[in-house]
Amino acid sequence: MNPILVEVVRGNRVESFHRGSAVVVDANGRVIQAWGEVERPIYTRSAVKPLQALPLVASGAADRFGLTNAEISLACGSHAGEPLHVATAESMLRKAGQDSSCLECGVHWPLGESAVRELASLGHSPTPLHNNCSGKHAGFICLACHRGHDPAGYVQPDHPAMQEVTTALVEATGSLLDDSCRAVDGCSIPTFAMPLRCLATGFARLGTGHNLTPSLASAAARIRVAIAAEPVMLAGSGRFDTRVITAFGEAVISKCGAEGVAAAAIPGHGLGLAVKIDDGAGRAAEVAMAVLLRRNLTAPLADYDELSRLAKVPLRNWNGTVVGQVRAGPPWSAE
Amino acid sequence: MNPILVEVVRGNRVESFHRGSAVVVDANGRVIQAWGEVERPIYTRSAVKPLQALPLVASGAADRFGLTNAEISLACGSHAGEPLHVATAESMLRKAGQDSSCLECGVHWPLGESAVRELASLGHSPTPLHNNCSGKHAGFICLACHRGHDPAGYVQPDHPAMQEVTTALVEATGSLLDDSCRAVDGCSIPTFAMPLRCLATGFARLGTGHNLTPSLASAAARIRVAIAAEPVMLAGSGRFDTRVITAFGEAVISKCGAEGVAAAAIPGHGLGLAVKIDDGAGRAAEVAMAVLLRRNLTAPLADYDELSRLAKVPLRNWNGTVVGQVRAGPPWSAE
Repeated sequence: MNPILVEVVRGNRVESFHRGSAVVVDANGRVIQAWGEVERPIYTRSAVKPLQALPLVASGAADRFGLTNAEISLACGSHAGEPLHVATAESMLRKAGQDSSCLECGVHWPLGESAVRELASLGHSPTPLHNNCSGKHAGFICLACHRGHDPAGYVQPDHPAMQEVTTALVEATGSLLDDSCRAVDGCSIPTFAMPLRCLATGFARLGTGHNLTPSLASAAARIRVAIAAEPVMLAGSGRFDTRVITAFGEAVISKCGAEGVAAAAIPGHGLGLAVKIDDGAGRAAEVAMAVLLRRNLTAPLADYDELSRLAKVPLRNWNGTVVGQVRAGPPWSAE
Repeated sequence: MNPILVEVVRGNRVESFHRGSAVVVDANGRVIQAWGEVERPIYTRSAVKPLQALPLVASGAADRFGLTNAEISLACGSHAGEPLHVATAESMLRKAGQDSSCLECGVHWPLGESAVRELASLGHSPTPLHNNCSGKHAGFICLACHRGHDPAGYVQPDHPAMQEVTTALVEATGSLLDDSCRAVDGCSIPTFAMPLRCLATGFARLGTGHNLTPSLASAAARIRVAIAAEPVMLAGSGRFDTRVITAFGEAVISKCGAEGVAAAAIPGHGLGLAVKIDDGAGRAAEVAMAVLLRRNLTAPLADYDELSRLAKVPLRNWNGTVVGQVRAGPPWSAE
């Protein structure tokens, strides 16, 4: 039974609450702090995208195609479908000699509400470029083209580009990822179940390069620079990961995924952090991760004010009055 | 500790799960079936709207202003902000000699995604009429005007119209609703915490009229007719409550609320049903309510096919492939 990590308060009562697990590890996978069942396999979903982008850089594809920081950050991101995100994904494909017809991620209206309204106001419909995963997919296509593979079918587990991505995931996380733990993600690529501890380990290694091959370690360093330089590409205006990285630069990498997953690295302390909310709520994963970051970042790294805002989120009614809050649960309530 | 009522499955694993409580009662408040903590007070949120509409009818306001079935159903609803919803709320206000400037619910973009896109494509911004609660608020304003009160401030707990609404809630649910259990809802009116059993009792009485004063019982009957005649006003195209009531007509009243609350009545069996998901997830409340309805509706009342679709919801990726499902949890897994 996982503990209550996050509470939603209205008036003087807890209206809803979120159980989950959370873990902090070092780059050897040693558990420093843990709450709940951190060995139970969970699907890592989009939290693992920065690790899935390692082969794009390590293979030399990013250099060969002259990918910018913005493009590498987008390849690690779940973007909001803002015009800049769409243009950046398109640019990546163009550099590999491809176009959006190669994308196999499917189509959805942008994650960002204002992006939806902007698109609709222009009388347009979304394309695969608006899919929040289009940057990641463009990265896979760049990798396939660089290796000389036909990109068609790159979402399939047995496509050589996807196999290279999975191999990097295994190396970074230390988790054996076989068919028994594979399912299909929202964007049609494989998503693997692994212990939460392994997701955190992957981020500790992404943050430090420790226990990675030299080429993956070098790719991790390049990815850290890109994300810190272009945090809006990782998520979007006002969204959690973008706010955290904007506040901390290279001191923190943060990446959320669907169904209440969040992962982060604190390179300066050699730590990897991960959260899974049992019920899949993103609001709770964000608050829990903000609390974990605040607990583990020591001065002078931190913009604690921004973390405190993210760790205690006011609930407002439609007239703007504060009527409650989303806040840390009992294990962290003294903080 | 509440049981796992709903599971979210991806591939061959449970990815996320939702704990909660559920109860079935008769109009005396006698518990017929229960799962989890049904005596713990929960905020009923918008699930209670059909009960909050009782004074609109019982006072004579609905008759005096010639409210139609569509208008009465909208007064009980959380609408999607579709053009028909907006026009209907506006019509209610006009009949009371008022306009949208009276609404104190605040403004938000429509709940319905297609309604958002339609509004944006016209270059318009939302008004208070697009607030999902505008029909309920228009009903409060009709009640205030009928009673000869200035409607200004009708959202406050001490406004005479709101006091009449609260008195009806107390009578219907049998729960003492004092200041200690009051908070502020998203639309600025009071929301009260009460045992889940009491919410279900209120719906059993709404469905049957039993244990209500004659005027509230008569109002309940009028509300049942209105909702059954105009289910799209209660929610919107393709939404849960609208689908259930479209399938069952007067045999079921179903009303969901924010933070994982759902309530229903089966008038023909004299039953009231209620669900609260611990973590506030609407997807889980809907599946749990569909299961409860399927368990409790006996032939020839039921469109079991529609209930089965609502009780086991496929998860598709953005290419349309089924990659998982939202389904009943262990207590109901044999069903």
